[in-house]
Amino acid sequence: MSANISAAISCPSAGASNYGTFANAREARLAIRRGEWDSHTSGLAPGYAQGNLAILPEALATDFLRFCQRNPKPCPLLAVSEPGDPMLPTLGEDVDIRTDIPRYRIWKHGELAAEVSDIRDFWRDDLVSFVLGCSFSFEHALIEGGIELRHVSQGKNVAMYRTNIQTVPAGPFHGPMVVSMRPMTAANAIRAVQITARVPAVHGAPVHLGDPAQIGIADINRPDFGDAVEILPGEMPVFWACGVTPQAVVMAMAPEFCITHAPGYMLITDVRNSDLSLA
Amino acid sequence: MSANISAAISCPSAGASNYGTFANAREARLAIRRGEWDSHTSGLAPGYAQGNLAILPEALATDFLRFCQRNPKPCPLLAVSEPGDPMLPTLGEDVDIRTDIPRYRIWKHGELAAEVSDIRDFWRDDLVSFVLGCSFSFEHALIEGGIELRHVSQGKNVAMYRTNIQTVPAGPFHGPMVVSMRPMTAANAIRAVQITARVPAVHGAPVHLGDPAQIGIADINRPDFGDAVEILPGEMPVFWACGVTPQAVVMAMAPEFCITHAPGYMLITDVRNSDLSLA
Repeated sequence: MSANISAAISCPSAGASNYGTFANAREARLAIRRGEWDSHTSGLAPGYAQGNLAILPEALATDFLRFCQRNPKPCPLLAVSEPGDPMLPTLGEDVDIRTDIPRYRIWKHGELAAEVSDIRDFWRDDLVSFVLGCSFSFEHALIEGGIELRHVSQGKNVAMYRTNIQTVPAGPFHGPMVVSMRPMTAANAIRAVQITARVPAVHGAPVHLGDPAQIGIADINRPDFGDAVEILPGEMPVFWACGVTPQAVVMAMAPEFCITHAPGYMLITDVRNSDLSLA
Repeated sequence: MSANISAAISCPSAGASNYGTFANAREARLAIRRGEWDSHTSGLAPGYAQGNLAILPEALATDFLRFCQRNPKPCPLLAVSEPGDPMLPTLGEDVDIRTDIPRYRIWKHGELAAEVSDIRDFWRDDLVSFVLGCSFSFEHALIEGGIELRHVSQGKNVAMYRTNIQTVPAGPFHGPMVVSMRPMTAANAIRAVQITARVPAVHGAPVHLGDPAQIGIADINRPDFGDAVEILPGEMPVFWACGVTPQAVVMAMAPEFCITHAPGYMLITDVRNSDLSLA
């Protein structure tokens, strides 16, 4: 199960290539829909927010919606579809969730059943799509703010950890919060709180900084997901709620049917990162 | 000299009594002007910003103004008067800096020469008044935000430290930044960054958090000014730039003539604390 969760993790690295391949989000989505783009989406349409995808049967959707509402930091909902409707009009012009992501994963009873580039054959009238904000948007803001992110500089995945912070349960959905960690100086940590507090739709302000043991992390050098990253003298670890939390929560309950994006293959929305900022 | 600086420190404790004695700032100032109030000003007109005072001869004023402009975190300027003009119209209706503070200190060559309740007899045509924001305003915001401030709960003065953070010099004004310290949990530290970042006119976001040695504080239990306060397990020290910095800088250069408020006896302005908030 843990391997499945790990395989399902989400956000692309802010530092990957592809940068600026498409002028805007709609062009990128149309190329993806035509099958002309089968790679990760990092940097593909700069400035536009990308989203994590979870598609669940309607029977589970209300509980999952309540779960997201109760846990906005790990589960920042950008959009929820009508049952059976593949369109997500609030995220952009003509967004069809069945075709507009380059790679999907089909899950049956918690096991990976298929990886596909189009889910029209798997579509059902009871499916509800959830699109959640991605830390890529806030990492972009941090880098624009002059804060070096080591995992980005080193081309690594961000380090992620299970914590002893419990999410607020809803129906069958429950479990610990997963956090991502970025090491930085205290002065940068203070700036990073200010920068990310302005983007609650992409995880918002950190949930912790300093001593990892206080949130149940026994060994900072052994992340549960992603890659370990060095913490230099004079730096402190800063922890943000992570979008892996809802994925881990969904996978842990092994729903009979579920579709997610493949890791790094995100939905590119027409929402600008700058529009997600409160100020 | 250090004793003089210590005697000149400024802000009242946010927790002191007097709370709500006057309905608004103007009423409080008029009572002070009539000599009907000879005590500290903490809580006197709730919701209104109070300010630290430094009055310098014009020959030094330009350099001090540049010093404040270059060091906005320790020296947040609320107002500067015209030379020789005792009125501060931007801070409220009919604010006369010669009479509207309950107690002043007259300094000659860095030595305390007199403590008076009215400076009309000391007024000169070349004097320039500087009013600087006071951490009382942001402490109020922190307490409203549900963050306990231990020094306030315990009726102590806040702990203050000289650091190895150098201010940006201007003319004869130079010296290390003084910081105030408030211990809190990491979660509260994150909230406190957000709350105080919104009030740059009263010191703004912290300048440091965590390891005191990183900013040159050898012993957190021995503050240079104010009272030591316990840091409980699971808490970290959070450091803000402190209004004692400009006072220490002015005192250290021992100007031939200078007037300040007496510690805790502040100027009550018509500016609402809420108006100092960016958002």
